[in-house]
Amino acid sequence: MNAQPTYLLGVDVGGTKIAAAVVTFEGQILGQVRTPTEPHDQDRVVANVLRAMREVIAQAGLQIPQIAAIGLGAPGDVDPERGVAIRAVNIRWDNLPFVHIVQDDFKVPAFIENDVRAATLGELYFGAGREHRNLVYLSVGTGIANGVVIDGRLYRGVHGMAGEIGHAVFDRRGPRCACGIRGCLEAVAAGPAMAHRAGEWINAGRPSTLMQMAGNDVANITGKMVLDAAARGDPVATDAVEEAAAYLAIAILMLHRLYDPEIVVLGGGIAQAGEVILAPIRQVLERELLSSILTCEHVLRLSELGSDTGILGAVAIAIQGLREKGKEN
Amino acid sequence: MNAQPTYLLGVDVGGTKIAAAVVTFEGQILGQVRTPTEPHDQDRVVANVLRAMREVIAQAGLQIPQIAAIGLGAPGDVDPERGVAIRAVNIRWDNLPFVHIVQDDFKVPAFIENDVRAATLGELYFGAGREHRNLVYLSVGTGIANGVVIDGRLYRGVHGMAGEIGHAVFDRRGPRCACGIRGCLEAVAAGPAMAHRAGEWINAGRPSTLMQMAGNDVANITGKMVLDAAARGDPVATDAVEEAAAYLAIAILMLHRLYDPEIVVLGGGIAQAGEVILAPIRQVLERELLSSILTCEHVLRLSELGSDTGILGAVAIAIQGLREKGKEN
Repeated sequence: MNAQPTYLLGVDVGGTKIAAAVVTFEGQILGQVRTPTEPHDQDRVVANVLRAMREVIAQAGLQIPQIAAIGLGAPGDVDPERGVAIRAVNIRWDNLPFVHIVQDDFKVPAFIENDVRAATLGELYFGAGREHRNLVYLSVGTGIANGVVIDGRLYRGVHGMAGEIGHAVFDRRGPRCACGIRGCLEAVAAGPAMAHRAGEWINAGRPSTLMQMAGNDVANITGKMVLDAAARGDPVATDAVEEAAAYLAIAILMLHRLYDPEIVVLGGGIAQAGEVILAPIRQVLERELLSSILTCEHVLRLSELGSDTGILGAVAIAIQGLREKGKEN
Repeated sequence: MNAQPTYLLGVDVGGTKIAAAVVTFEGQILGQVRTPTEPHDQDRVVANVLRAMREVIAQAGLQIPQIAAIGLGAPGDVDPERGVAIRAVNIRWDNLPFVHIVQDDFKVPAFIENDVRAATLGELYFGAGREHRNLVYLSVGTGIANGVVIDGRLYRGVHGMAGEIGHAVFDRRGPRCACGIRGCLEAVAAGPAMAHRAGEWINAGRPSTLMQMAGNDVANITGKMVLDAAARGDPVATDAVEEAAAYLAIAILMLHRLYDPEIVVLGGGIAQAGEVILAPIRQVLERELLSSILTCEHVLRLSELGSDTGILGAVAIAIQGLREKGKEN
């Protein structure tokens, strides 16, 4: 049996589910385990993560010493240096020393990073950014945030808060965001914003297939329903998607103007909907925002990791962690 | 006579005037010469710069060998590595090898950088950023752009275009910018945008002292007139300033969210107007945009270099150039 540490373990800790996978250094996923997070209880989250990790190693027919490093991707505020998950909106942990716990249990080097930053590095190592050293990743789902890679390294800012484009203002007269500020990008372009806007138009009397999908209660409309209905040509859903797409196009231009990267990679749950959201984003970029020197091809790429983003992001964090550790020694 | 190279020469090449100064390494300005740029003719610009440099050295009672380095700040696209002023909106040069020309003439190391980036480094070395290693500088005048310092060094982006916040969209339904895009920050918050907005309100029938200041022609209203009239309590001017200030506050939040610096320093001609524009910016930041952890004091600083920004920025570029050269050798 080959017991050389030649595999990596990537763990994506989400608000509803945990995904753990054994992956090669080249990003090939050998096996994967998914389990509910139970986000209301920090101890259960930790137990679920540790169990999923053991399970996926066993399923792959491996033993722990064959794992070179473990990468953890987690939502919210994370301190990679101390290895702590500080806090998150959707998981009830409080300064959880996640890296310490995992290393204690597995005796393998572990590393943690915020999930959007992890996804950014995942695209750099394995996805749309493979040929690049400078990229910005824009994650659009129920929330919106961006990650930044400068010269091959994650840029975190002074307080680890760089990339909070979701809570910058894109329409000062727009709807109020959950964060309290009026017209944040999240409040005008994320999944719930699309659902809310479609609901308002339906309440104002516009007919839509969304009503049936939502059991005749606009409060049940989700971003995913809006994208699905738009893909089938529902006019209310199409308008709601186009409104969000216009703001996302403006956000992509903003990222280009401020960071001047090689590419912007669009990812997250909404990007996975594909052409229904991409086509109107491209249209606004090309018709309204880009000059002749800045073409859409140069500006915008789609995530190449899709639903593996979380796992491959976590693995990228593990690889980066090993590299930096190697430099120190 | 002491002929050790212990002084620096800073040259601010603007669209209307050139300012050259002899400055110590600590940023003390010993003497200064100003002369018109004659921006329509590249050869005259060069001749005017070289003459101003000789004059200010002579006026300070110095000789060229006492100058350790020369820094040039220039508008528009600049390539610091090749030492070339590529192009500018307001000066008719075309790939001018400025550094080569100056070094040939003076036999002293010379360095060039875009004027807003130079100002950013000037604030870092001599101004509001002296205690910091990470800052963003927002320059607001007839144009708007920002500079970024990360860990003590200028961040330029991949194509040298990072910091073009002036041509990112802040009101997608706003007025069209000279660049062709609708609702750029420049089109809603720069000096000409304030003048234009005040003019529209006057045309719509609102009385204002601006009419008298502008010789009864709204086309003559300038941003400076609007700021002056607002300082004297003119209601139309006050409203125009407050509208611009709201967008500038949103821009300052944007810079914080995307770069997460220690501070944002506000500079440029409009910032020099002082409280008339600062008070409404602070008000929007404090009342609408900042959370309890992000206070206005932490977020916003005023340029400390004022009208010396151009010269001290150019000198900062000279100092940085000498340092980097020292590292290479």
